[in-house]
Amino acid sequence: MQMTADDFHRQGKIIGLVPTMGYLHEGHLQLVRILRPQCDVLVISIFVNPIQFAPTEDLDKYPRDFERDEQLCRSEKVDIIFYPDNLEMYPQPFHTFINVEKLSEGLCGASRPGHFRGVATVVAKLFNIVKPQLAIFGEKDYQQLMVIKQMVKDLNFDITIHSAPIVREADGLAMSSRNKYLSPEERKAAPLIYQSLLTARTLYQQGMDDPEEITEKMISILQKIPRLKVDYISFVDSQTLWPVTKIKGEVLVALAVYIGQTRLIDNIVIRG
Amino acid sequence: MQMTADDFHRQGKIIGLVPTMGYLHEGHLQLVRILRPQCDVLVISIFVNPIQFAPTEDLDKYPRDFERDEQLCRSEKVDIIFYPDNLEMYPQPFHTFINVEKLSEGLCGASRPGHFRGVATVVAKLFNIVKPQLAIFGEKDYQQLMVIKQMVKDLNFDITIHSAPIVREADGLAMSSRNKYLSPEERKAAPLIYQSLLTARTLYQQGMDDPEEITEKMISILQKIPRLKVDYISFVDSQTLWPVTKIKGEVLVALAVYIGQTRLIDNIVIRG
Repeated sequence: MQMTADDFHRQGKIIGLVPTMGYLHEGHLQLVRILRPQCDVLVISIFVNPIQFAPTEDLDKYPRDFERDEQLCRSEKVDIIFYPDNLEMYPQPFHTFINVEKLSEGLCGASRPGHFRGVATVVAKLFNIVKPQLAIFGEKDYQQLMVIKQMVKDLNFDITIHSAPIVREADGLAMSSRNKYLSPEERKAAPLIYQSLLTARTLYQQGMDDPEEITEKMISILQKIPRLKVDYISFVDSQTLWPVTKIKGEVLVALAVYIGQTRLIDNIVIRG
Repeated sequence: MQMTADDFHRQGKIIGLVPTMGYLHEGHLQLVRILRPQCDVLVISIFVNPIQFAPTEDLDKYPRDFERDEQLCRSEKVDIIFYPDNLEMYPQPFHTFINVEKLSEGLCGASRPGHFRGVATVVAKLFNIVKPQLAIFGEKDYQQLMVIKQMVKDLNFDITIHSAPIVREADGLAMSSRNKYLSPEERKAAPLIYQSLLTARTLYQQGMDDPEEITEKMISILQKIPRLKVDYISFVDSQTLWPVTKIKGEVLVALAVYIGQTRLIDNIVIRG
């Protein structure tokens, strides 16, 4: 892959990278479609990165379907699928980890210690392997996007990071490979997650600017979902990800909930 | 620098990097001379990296002389001197740090917490800025060399790491920018550091293979140095840097001592 990348660079070609964990859905394909016209060589990486999962998490059951992914890539005119295995990515001994402080600490970082360390590390590896000039990440994983942007800036990766808005099902549920885990009943109720976020925005527009007050209303909506457990609902500055006590400027409303065993995240930006 | 590097890559040229903190001596020049014939474009970086110094250390008084360094570079046919300032390297907010676990923990890493995190981070930055295919590090900073090699492997930097043996003054003292701190009296006694390492090797060759026993003999030599304080004397596996209890295989004997305020390091490899 590195030699191939070097060849493309010598030819003056632009390499674009879409890093994924596979089990592709419309959200991923949207990333491909946005990057496709901006680069000469479009690379998608498919790798379920073990070091971003805690031992208690869903690494083993994370959905995989390479053949389906390959067909989708073909129809989207992806040039290269980079599809390494764990031993290629993490030959032992492996000791090096990248930590993006502050930005990794709140939100999902608080519930999933070590998660963003695993993400930053694998993304740096992918950058060094694929050598892209452009890469794109989805805004559903908003904190991940901010962590990657900070890492790129701090470590001087010569890569422009693009992002793309959340792609949703017709009923509003944010697309995610993990939606597959939901039972029909859970799936039917899951759009209430997005409803709670839309309600947050509406309440703000109606004059409510206290995150605690809005959170209460959101919880009353979310509680209609069967087997629901709220992991967090946070109102943070959209750039620093620091919690805000009042909505002003650009505020990210981010949440993570469990529906049964399935952990789902979603977010919305409110411009105060 | 990145655009310049891209141009060279498009021309199929090989970039070699010699990272330094300046105040160049024969040790640095040796690195240049080894790398010079292997690359088309030789880049030397001169940057006293603040994040590898603890607040109590000698960052402020670390010797600097850019004009002299520039002349030395010119006479060695260095093509590019990359000489950034702190604000270019660490614009605020800066949050990203690279940790090479295990290898960073013993030896100097134990006495200087955070030191190798600072080293790994700045070297990754320099790699991304200069985009070399080759880089070289001196074996005096043996642990640093091992940390960098592990980082390069773990993060898939497409860079070949070379190393070069310690360059010594005529009397055996390892060359170091910090030798400048020594008073004439201290300087005169400082070669006993290397003498203690040579004695370790001789004792081993004479049949002594217990690190503790050899260490005692080394200390009795080092104690002839005025104002001496031993930071550590360690016998470690030359690859893993794990302490050995008996010399066999390739063992690194590494030490750090203070002579007054000046901290000096040196090492020797014993092949058991």
